[in-house]
Amino acid sequence: MSGLCEQLDPTKWAELLKNVETVIFDADGVLWLGMDAVPGSPAVVERLAAMGKQIIIVTNNSTKSRVDYEEKCQKLGFKSVKKENIVNPPVLCSELLQRSALTKRKIYLIGAQGLRDELAKTGFQYVGDGPDHFENYSETEFLYDVALDPEVGAVIVGYDNHFNYVKLMKAANYLRDPKCLFIASNEDSTFPGPNKDVTIPGTGALVAAVKVAAQREPLVMGKPHIATYNYIRAHWNIDPAKTLMVGDRCDTDIKFGIDNGMKTMLVLSGVHTLDDVEKYRKEDRKDLLPDFYAGKLGDLL
Amino acid sequence: MSGLCEQLDPTKWAELLKNVETVIFDADGVLWLGMDAVPGSPAVVERLAAMGKQIIIVTNNSTKSRVDYEEKCQKLGFKSVKKENIVNPPVLCSELLQRSALTKRKIYLIGAQGLRDELAKTGFQYVGDGPDHFENYSETEFLYDVALDPEVGAVIVGYDNHFNYVKLMKAANYLRDPKCLFIASNEDSTFPGPNKDVTIPGTGALVAAVKVAAQREPLVMGKPHIATYNYIRAHWNIDPAKTLMVGDRCDTDIKFGIDNGMKTMLVLSGVHTLDDVEKYRKEDRKDLLPDFYAGKLGDLL
Repeated sequence: MSGLCEQLDPTKWAELLKNVETVIFDADGVLWLGMDAVPGSPAVVERLAAMGKQIIIVTNNSTKSRVDYEEKCQKLGFKSVKKENIVNPPVLCSELLQRSALTKRKIYLIGAQGLRDELAKTGFQYVGDGPDHFENYSETEFLYDVALDPEVGAVIVGYDNHFNYVKLMKAANYLRDPKCLFIASNEDSTFPGPNKDVTIPGTGALVAAVKVAAQREPLVMGKPHIATYNYIRAHWNIDPAKTLMVGDRCDTDIKFGIDNGMKTMLVLSGVHTLDDVEKYRKEDRKDLLPDFYAGKLGDLL
Repeated sequence: MSGLCEQLDPTKWAELLKNVETVIFDADGVLWLGMDAVPGSPAVVERLAAMGKQIIIVTNNSTKSRVDYEEKCQKLGFKSVKKENIVNPPVLCSELLQRSALTKRKIYLIGAQGLRDELAKTGFQYVGDGPDHFENYSETEFLYDVALDPEVGAVIVGYDNHFNYVKLMKAANYLRDPKCLFIASNEDSTFPGPNKDVTIPGTGALVAAVKVAAQREPLVMGKPHIATYNYIRAHWNIDPAKTLMVGDRCDTDIKFGIDNGMKTMLVLSGVHTLDDVEKYRKEDRKDLLPDFYAGKLGDLL
């Protein structure tokens, strides 16, 4: 792994691919932004599939289920991508819960549809879904008793745009019980949206609030954490040295690739820029420096 | 400063007071819990005042103004405490804003009444007050444009039980402008409520979320930060060596006292316990170890 951040063009890309069997793609900021494909990304992914490369999509986005992602892939032109090729925090959370020996099988869920759907499939129940406004509580009730469900055995924190003080307080109080599992879908600080001039806070911001209030550290599912890599190793036959990790964030995607011995490529169509790479280089953060970069996937056509 | 955490009884307390001119008290968990005085605390404070000791109340609680605190003190029996003896984050924020050369004089406020009242006094305007529900926005509006007020020149984060994802997102987007000030009233992780079995998340949890989303560090006003000490030095004539800092949190109150050369006393009527002290001792956190402790102030009568 060079960490040289060498710019790829179509010729160098073709050269690189000779030693690559598997390509792992991040989704938001790489394949698409919001509801639109990044121009050229579908053609690149489809060409790789046609060449016989193994394609895996690994996203830290917990808002959608794998079925939803398959639909989105089909609609945006990533025709070869099926739900079996997709790894997301809901699947990782659900597998962790099934392996764990939880005696209380309800989950306090700070999250969205993707987590709901996966939990529903595995026979776990969840509470806490949707809006939970402070105005629905009296101050006394709030300070003396947060009306917890005694059956809850785990707290999951994922992306939830209904996150608020009430949810933060409930999570912190469930987590007073040291036997209550604390799971975070990921710790991305921001989310690559369709408008680069708008910061969309990521799950990492919500997780940070719960960590401080609960004074506990979560088990984190998404990249760059090991749970993601363990899942991939359990479900696919990959040789890290012949695997290329492609992402738009140095601290999740590139770090994930480097930590696990893969080649890495940054695309500039999402969150991080070459200025970020230079900053990490000055800080000597070798674990965040990609081998290669491209403006966007489509530049490699 | 011994850091020995020696238990005080009325005799040792009387001995200690011979070399003390000023006593600085934290409020929540020391003087009161919720709406009730900690039994014996008013009598101890009043006796100190009668002895001619200088009394200063320094709280990290940003929910009330100094006028409200004076009323609360009078009602709970702290008759000698006037608003001039009280230092709280709203006053510190307001002083900082008046000193700063902000060209945009609106504040995006995540906070409660105390901050609102102090800001109103200083001629600053504020926006963002009260509930701001996600359901009032369309998804498009949310991802493309967060409808910021172009006049905002500072973001203040204090305790706000209407804190939610929308407020987090607005704060993070105001803070994209490096000239926009980022002020935190304090970083207390939890708040000592009337029921010790209930965790009430503190301002520190909300600040943590904004820090992650904005990728910026705030100017923190409350204990143990230097802004509080500077304010005290500017308004009172105190000799730190003859000052006793009394609080219920090692990481805010005791650290504040130790960092600034005062004698320190922990009371166990709020957040921290002797187990916490032992944990800090094992971690060799000399900046968190009090010289003295008492179960509660009233034990010294």
